[in-house]
Amino acid sequence: MTKNLFQSGTELRTHDSELKDKCGVFGVFNHPDAAYLAYLGLYALQHRGEESAGIVVSDGKKMCSHRDMGHVQDVFHGAVLDRLKGDRAIGHVRYSTTGSSNLKNAQPILVDYSRGEIALGHNGNLVNADILRSELEAYGSIFQTTTDSEIIIHLMAKPSLRNIQEGVVDALARVRGAYSLVFLTHEYLIAARDPQGFRPLWLGKIGDTYLVSSETCAFDIMDAESVREIEPGEVLFISAKGLKSEKIPTFNSKAAHCIFEHVYFSRPDSKIFGETVHTVREKLGRQLAIEQPAKADIVIPVPDSGNSAALGFSQQSKIPLEVGIIRNHYVGRTFIQPSQGIRDFKVRVKFNLVKEVLKGKSIVVVDDSIVRGTTSKMRVKSLRKAGAKEVHLRISCPPHRHPCAYGIDFPTKEELIANKYSHEELKKYLDCDSIGYLSLEGMLNCVSLPKENYCTACWSGNYPLPFEALNKYHAEKC
Amino acid sequence: MTKNLFQSGTELRTHDSELKDKCGVFGVFNHPDAAYLAYLGLYALQHRGEESAGIVVSDGKKMCSHRDMGHVQDVFHGAVLDRLKGDRAIGHVRYSTTGSSNLKNAQPILVDYSRGEIALGHNGNLVNADILRSELEAYGSIFQTTTDSEIIIHLMAKPSLRNIQEGVVDALARVRGAYSLVFLTHEYLIAARDPQGFRPLWLGKIGDTYLVSSETCAFDIMDAESVREIEPGEVLFISAKGLKSEKIPTFNSKAAHCIFEHVYFSRPDSKIFGETVHTVREKLGRQLAIEQPAKADIVIPVPDSGNSAALGFSQQSKIPLEVGIIRNHYVGRTFIQPSQGIRDFKVRVKFNLVKEVLKGKSIVVVDDSIVRGTTSKMRVKSLRKAGAKEVHLRISCPPHRHPCAYGIDFPTKEELIANKYSHEELKKYLDCDSIGYLSLEGMLNCVSLPKENYCTACWSGNYPLPFEALNKYHAEKC
Amino acid sequence: MTKNLFQSGTELRTHDSELKDKCGVFGVFNHPDAAYLAYLGLYALQHRGEESAGIVVSDGKKMCSHRDMGHVQDVFHGAVLDRLKGDRAIGHVRYSTTGSSNLKNAQPILVDYSRGEIALGHNGNLVNADILRSELEAYGSIFQTTTDSEIIIHLMAKPSLRNIQEGVVDALARVRGAYSLVFLTHEYLIAARDPQGFRPLWLGKIGDTYLVSSETCAFDIMDAESVREIEPGEVLFISAKGLKSEKIPTFNSKAAHCIFEHVYFSRPDSKIFGETVHTVREKLGRQLAIEQPAKADIVIPVPDSGNSAALGFSQQSKIPLEVGIIRNHYVGRTFIQPSQGIRDFKVRVKFNLVKEVLKGKSIVVVDDSIVRGTTSKMRVKSLRKAGAKEVHLRISCPPHRHPCAYGIDFPTKEELIANKYSHEELKKYLDCDSIGYLSLEGMLNCVSLPKENYCTACWSGNYPLPFEALNKYHAEKC
Amino acid sequence: MTKNLFQSGTELRTHDSELKDKCGVFGVFNHPDAAYLAYLGLYALQHRGEESAGIVVSDGKKMCSHRDMGHVQDVFHGAVLDRLKGDRAIGHVRYSTTGSSNLKNAQPILVDYSRGEIALGHNGNLVNADILRSELEAYGSIFQTTTDSEIIIHLMAKPSLRNIQEGVVDALARVRGAYSLVFLTHEYLIAARDPQGFRPLWLGKIGDTYLVSSETCAFDIMDAESVREIEPGEVLFISAKGLKSEKIPTFNSKAAHCIFEHVYFSRPDSKIFGETVHTVREKLGRQLAIEQPAKADIVIPVPDSGNSAALGFSQQSKIPLEVGIIRNHYVGRTFIQPSQGIRDFKVRVKFNLVKEVLKGKSIVVVDDSIVRGTTSKMRVKSLRKAGAKEVHLRISCPPHRHPCAYGIDFPTKEELIANKYSHEELKKYLDCDSIGYLSLEGMLNCVSLPKENYCTACWSGNYPLPFEALNKYHAEKC
Repeated sequence: MTKNLFQSGTELRTHDSELKDKCGVFGVFNHPDAAYLAYLGLYALQHRGEESAGIVVSDGKKMCSHRDMGHVQDVFHGAVLDRLKGDRAIGHVRYSTTGSSNLKNAQPILVDYSRGEIALGHNGNLVNADILRSELEAYGSIFQTTTDSEIIIHLMAKPSLRNIQEGVVDALARVRGAYSLVFLTHEYLIAARDPQGFRPLWLGKIGDTYLVSSETCAFDIMDAESVREIEPGEVLFISAKGLKSEKIPTFNSKAAHCIFEHVYFSRPDSKIFGETVHTVREKLGRQLAIEQPAKADIVIPVPDSGNSAALGFSQQSKIPLEVGIIRNHYVGRTFIQPSQGIRDFKVRVKFNLVKEVLKGKSIVVVDDSIVRGTTSKMRVKSLRKAGAKEVHLRISCPPHRHPCAYGIDFPTKEELIANKYSHEELKKYLDCDSIGYLSLEGMLNCVSLPKENYCTACWSGNYPLPFEALNKYHAEKC
Repeated sequence: MTKNLFQSGTELRTHDSELKDKCGVFGVFNHPDAAYLAYLGLYALQHRGEESAGIVVSDGKKMCSHRDMGHVQDVFHGAVLDRLKGDRAIGHVRYSTTGSSNLKNAQPILVDYSRGEIALGHNGNLVNADILRSELEAYGSIFQTTTDSEIIIHLMAKPSLRNIQEGVVDALARVRGAYSLVFLTHEYLIAARDPQGFRPLWLGKIGDTYLVSSETCAFDIMDAESVREIEPGEVLFISAKGLKSEKIPTFNSKAAHCIFEHVYFSRPDSKIFGETVHTVREKLGRQLAIEQPAKADIVIPVPDSGNSAALGFSQQSKIPLEVGIIRNHYVGRTFIQPSQGIRDFKVRVKFNLVKEVLKGKSIVVVDDSIVRGTTSKMRVKSLRKAGAKEVHLRISCPPHRHPCAYGIDFPTKEELIANKYSHEELKKYLDCDSIGYLSLEGMLNCVSLPKENYCTACWSGNYPLPFEALNKYHAEKC
Repeated sequence: MTKNLFQSGTELRTHDSELKDKCGVFGVFNHPDAAYLAYLGLYALQHRGEESAGIVVSDGKKMCSHRDMGHVQDVFHGAVLDRLKGDRAIGHVRYSTTGSSNLKNAQPILVDYSRGEIALGHNGNLVNADILRSELEAYGSIFQTTTDSEIIIHLMAKPSLRNIQEGVVDALARVRGAYSLVFLTHEYLIAARDPQGFRPLWLGKIGDTYLVSSETCAFDIMDAESVREIEPGEVLFISAKGLKSEKIPTFNSKAAHCIFEHVYFSRPDSKIFGETVHTVREKLGRQLAIEQPAKADIVIPVPDSGNSAALGFSQQSKIPLEVGIIRNHYVGRTFIQPSQGIRDFKVRVKFNLVKEVLKGKSIVVVDDSIVRGTTSKMRVKSLRKAGAKEVHLRISCPPHRHPCAYGIDFPTKEELIANKYSHEELKKYLDCDSIGYLSLEGMLNCVSLPKENYCTACWSGNYPLPFEALNKYHAEKC
Repeated sequence: MTKNLFQSGTELRTHDSELKDKCGVFGVFNHPDAAYLAYLGLYALQHRGEESAGIVVSDGKKMCSHRDMGHVQDVFHGAVLDRLKGDRAIGHVRYSTTGSSNLKNAQPILVDYSRGEIALGHNGNLVNADILRSELEAYGSIFQTTTDSEIIIHLMAKPSLRNIQEGVVDALARVRGAYSLVFLTHEYLIAARDPQGFRPLWLGKIGDTYLVSSETCAFDIMDAESVREIEPGEVLFISAKGLKSEKIPTFNSKAAHCIFEHVYFSRPDSKIFGETVHTVREKLGRQLAIEQPAKADIVIPVPDSGNSAALGFSQQSKIPLEVGIIRNHYVGRTFIQPSQGIRDFKVRVKFNLVKEVLKGKSIVVVDDSIVRGTTSKMRVKSLRKAGAKEVHLRISCPPHRHPCAYGIDFPTKEELIANKYSHEELKKYLDCDSIGYLSLEGMLNCVSLPKENYCTACWSGNYPLPFEALNKYHAEKC
């Protein structure tokens, strides 16, 4: 049944043939400049969401919010931060997309209900969102966004729940899927992570201030201590009275960490699921060199996500590392697209080649993944034009064959290049001299937790959590 | 009990000692440039709300919204209007205020619920908002705004209601207070007016396009026909199938039109409650000259709201009209306030005097109202400094002694100058040679409908509709 | 020869068939908040130039400048004013136009030359600009603007001049035309007016602070004293040492004040050329009623520029004044034009009619001028549609038949409606029942100075100062 | 004498202890989308100037200009580019600074003079600017900017020069210093480079379109051909009639290319002075490993400018390369500085460390230069805190001991750390285990041209061109 759904699931959008970063969340409790810390944290998490950014602060009595489309540095100019007064805050960055994405869906969501104001930031994707939303609407709920995240607050607002703790735990017991959450009430900063622990979420500390972040790199930017990961299925209530941890009641308590966070999403300097991303990537590169050796003159990474794996590949293979592709520092901001007549310039906006390095060489190119294949195809073409004698593609994970139901914005199954072509056809399509993927087994050997504790659904098709039909709300989810 | 409430009701804010314009609504059905017509309409209704402006359009399938703080011309620049594609639209302008007003409360409100998307624009004030909101929250509703208007949509979303018509009528049967509403669904443009008809609301037509507007001046700007007023207690459903009118079930069907709309709020070129505002004001001026004659050399209006009444006063009294106060055309936009050292410049930003006209003259100054009295006091002082020999204030309505519960932003009862001083004290406080108000009876003689069909609460204290305690939400209401 | 020039002088642009406001200048010497006073002054002079605004301040050592396209209130938001620190300043507003107007030509102009920094703001038009500019360019001068104003600074920079006083007086002795100027150096605020005194220029005072302004209304806004007019041909040097007045050497010392400043340009509350504008306009209206009587039910002004004359007409004729045309308060800002399909809305953006007043009435409409005639034609049509029985146009000055060479942006001679049609044809073209202009003699009887002291060129063709061919720079001049 | 000047030359500003990028220029001739190509080119040259950006286009008759403070992508949004119509254009990016930098000094400069409009973009620094400016001012010139670049246009405008070619060549024969220039007239795109060839300048081609760029990376972005370098002392006139090359008459024809362009300024994928920057840097790293070996576990670059040299160091020394410092992708945009209380966060905004890589390791850190030393000191401290056992700094050029007179924004001689401390003191100040600089001889061995063809003044103090006192204009120069 899953298959059928995905085959028609055209709503899973992708953009420019590349995977899109997902959301990032950050929380601060007990710091006079809470909004500024949230700003720093979101700045460090910017790679997880370039579409919109938002911060909600509370001074214990009143909440103040600012959200807008754009990068953190554009959304929060000085005057805005000055207005966000309070000693506790949560922040959110949302992934970049086009069309139906809009300010309405930017987070954190801030609402009023019987217990006062509450704000929420969500990284992940609920798999039973549609059923819950239909139920809620049937009982008269109205929604201000088209995100699945709003459902959580509606569930919390149910009158039978006695207090905020009960409200959060009860609501999370009803939703299923991937979520790393930060809530803000006037009394609490709350961090919650789904029982599978799909997405990372950390607790940090700086002086007497508690912090919560999707990744540890956001603690490093402010020289804060990375205390521990929020555990899968944990809800942590941070208040003036201290920390209190609750467990989400669940029948399925097996961890299912998204290994693609290691391969691509998270920053190399972050520590997630117990280990440093750069180190894992370097191991992936070494393993790749063992499994998929190549006879070549130089190894070059696709910067910056391929840097660590290329280094590992070079170390293992003894083929010298070189800098053959230069990434433009200023990429990632609004760039005016050329008019139709001069479209070919497009691919060079992001990367340029160092011809002198490539000319006449046999080259191993280390990349983190191939999704639709169009970008890879153009890259091989450019490398050949720059004089490369042979181009050997090496990918630091297995072929992507299945969409993600837990928050990553893949194309449909039919659009995934590994489903369209056989190995030989793919080589021909990409016009490379060889292409080698890392094996699933080899990839799992590079991470430290037991293999069954990772989600490998996008490669293996083994979905650790069943999900409902992917419908219109998925496109908006984060 | 009402009295007590008002005595402590500091939440009824006012600004710069002046009454504030209230909201305006506009609707368009069946025009390819619906957003542009809404823009024109809101531009004509700008005087009813300078704080924020918003438009929601529908193409029958999808709604698109733009709202922002600021004047219509600032909020809707060209690129924005181009994005608002659809053949039906509603628009809203909100009154100017400071502090707690913010984008969150800008209208139209746009939500998703079980029947799809719905948008709402509201002019007026619900008197049972707090009770209804408490009830809704007790049943688990969460709110995105702090406006009373959102309550209406929550009531409509109740699952027992069979369709949109039933939803709207049933919801309006539960709310009490002043409301001129425009709703937009994918199928309907809906116009509704409370059973008392406190605020104006008109149906218009241009070609095959139906329009709804707070005032007729918005029809004139696009050369549209003013068809008829939406009747008190009427809900008009406009769809591709035509017009269908429903009545809101109610026990209290007596009209209670806000006569202050004639005295001050509405534009002189608009027709409301059956007659042209300018004509009514001219009559008020004539009646004022009869009731409160003055021996003077010239009559001057406080422009522009006093123009029509001053003309009437001059006609009746045979005292020549003169131009003694010049209004700066560019007032009404953000103006940087002077630093403390040079505060005295403030009053001149809006008005200047023509000294040559005033020098050595005995003057009748015709104004529409005195609320806190501070502005009037400064004006008399300026006129004397400019050489006026005598200053006789003539006010084209009775003294304001009671706050408004139906949507006008008066100060508290204690701050109303007519409650603070006796007639003699007031004359002394304002330093004028005489002050004359129009009588309630005289005012009611200048309008055409039966006297009992008008609300005179702010002068008489006779509130046509009982109301609950004025609480925190009132400050945000519109 | 003049005739020929004008007949082909298509560069004299006009916009929307209306005369455009011209520039305004303001100066402040010795006030800690000089920039704020300049801001207030420009705000009061906004009607003289809606295209761009600028302020240059000096603290005696360093100049700081801010100029931008737009209204004063948009150009100078709080943060900008705070940056403009210094105790002396000059400001400038420039008239609204389209196309070739741009930021480059915004004033004040600020340059560096051998004597340091100097800034200049100019209201008027030089008639020998092209000859001077050609000469300067032939000697190697490069220009940053296409305005005639920049020429003055180039002339001042000539190395033979011994000091700033000599520089200014010598430069002004070489230019001919209309100029009311403010200069700012680190030592001086300088005010200069051409020997004919075409445009107004006033000296004001508030405490120990000297002020210079195009009109006295800018003094009133800050409660400053209007000391005296800068005399025709006077250069006033204001410094810490006090005031020093110089005369520009000239053979032609006859005054030629622009009487159209009284008829249309200046604000009614300003005093120029020795008398209050409103009072002059009222006299023009009385004289008009004598010369061009009409049998009608009511007199209505075209607001706001026709208000004073209509009042005078009504007083003289005993025909009651009425409010038949309402001006939208919010006009004057960027307004999105309708797409082609709905163009007819255009005229109503600015004015609306009060039908109840007009219906079945015979009406005298008092306006200040007819230039191209298109606006008047549309207005008559609207009045008739609103039910007016008869429309009698009365114009408070003679027919415009000649372009202005001294700074007013008239259309070419051929486009002036009074040159295209005979009186009868004009009546027919405008579709009015009668049209009556004030006579030149009658107009001159309403002002106090000797008749030969006014420029009447645009009506009489008698140009008080010969001028060179009007070339490309004229379009940009101010 | 030079020494004295520099000792008091506090005007040579620097920022955050780091060298600042300098200006970049770009030109387009004969392309319908000239402005868009200029936009792409400036985007690729963004690293040479982050302060302001500007483009001037010509359609052969009229020039149109847009300049503003900020990055290329912020300055040129879609609507702006659409307005810049024409088939020839020049563009300029200017370096980041604070305080006195402002829009007035943004380039290209656009002026009118006797031969019409001309625009100019300049990368470099004139050494006789003050003398020339004084002369020009003595003859009556007025200046709109405080840049040295404007002097060139004044010199060109001298009346004795017969045509534009003669004007440019004659003007350049009078100025001395560093300049890579692009001029735009209605007829010509002109590229000129000083006789020493201090800064790079290239000719490119795409189809029938000629291009000029500071670096070749700007050609690669649009897939254009890098034709050849503009030669030192060459003036190239590009017109519809083709290319015409002229020589600037000069007595000093020795080349003096800025070798620091290779070490730091230019992009690694650019080719300048005959060779690819990345390749030169790799050689510098190898040579550094030979001259300044270290016993260590890993080599890490300071990204991104140290990447190539670190790779060379690792290759030569066989010490494994590692990724120990992660650069934030989003650096380079406006970042809100923390309030005083939380200043320590500052350094982490740009870089983060990968602790797991560094812990317990002996590390070689490869950087391109040490100027003031404050950043290096903080970096060593961070590395130690992250667990590094030993920190060995290796710098891929000699110690900086002398300011640059040819366009690089160094601090004063006294602020250069290599002048303040002996080698041992420096080691102690920076708290590193060893520090090793590349020798001058060794550096020169890594580039291909004869050694005497490079400028090494900032290391050796041998200034290839004498210069006048560094005065106020230097601070503004580019």
